[in-house]
Amino acid sequence: MPEKPAARGTRIAHVGLAVRALDEILPFYRDVLGMPETPLDDADGARIAGLVAGESLVELLEPADESSPIGKFLAKRGPGIHHICFAVDDLDGTLARCRAAGIRLIDERPRIGAEGKRIAFLHPSATAGVLVELSEY
Amino acid sequence: MPEKPAARGTRIAHVGLAVRALDEILPFYRDVLGMPETPLDDADGARIAGLVAGESLVELLEPADESSPIGKFLAKRGPGIHHICFAVDDLDGTLARCRAAGIRLIDERPRIGAEGKRIAFLHPSATAGVLVELSEY
Repeated sequence: MPEKPAARGTRIAHVGLAVRALDEILPFYRDVLGMPETPLDDADGARIAGLVAGESLVELLEPADESSPIGKFLAKRGPGIHHICFAVDDLDGTLARCRAAGIRLIDERPRIGAEGKRIAFLHPSATAGVLVELSEY
Repeated sequence: MPEKPAARGTRIAHVGLAVRALDEILPFYRDVLGMPETPLDDADGARIAGLVAGESLVELLEPADESSPIGKFLAKRGPGIHHICFAVDDLDGTLARCRAAGIRLIDERPRIGAEGKRIAFLHPSATAGVLVELSEY
């Protein structure tokens, strides 16, 4: 039986920024702040640029069209910080704690997100206006 | 002459969240997500709770009154993600690159922020709607 991996603790996996034009803002993070670029797949109707910030990523999210989640966010709120993704050791256990605390979930069960990771979104009404994504290490 | 410290690269120092009632949302980050609490000084008219997320912090910012920066943000946008702070190796050099790239600064020169660190804020109009704070390691 494989050993259970050692607990790593909750950390920021990435911060997702909604942008209108990825190529216009990318040079700020890459060249001015000096973050290395890392390739990421498109996801949820958005083109994504990944930038390495220590153990976390900054993800620049440019919508393919206005009906995508990021397209709707831009239309309503304008460009800015869209969500925070926390990596957790035990996604099922964390979701169980959310339910026990009465926290409303967008994804009742984990789904497979970009890069093949198990993820789930919580509802911002339950987290003081912050859209929180959870992913499993 | 002291040796120059080795470059560590840009990372997320903290993400600042504007909250109306710190004590109401703190249990989510501390107990549900399992982040250890760390004491932080008040700053810029806000009471701050710090939560350790790997090498970064989540900072919950509760305004002392409506005229503080966080108080104004809450009145205009409601609770949510307020800013991202990136730790950089060379704050003066990074600000010089900002100026060369035509990025508008809120703090033209570094000032001393909470915990005695040298910090500077950039203007969100220059960073696609994201309020970016820079701090030096």
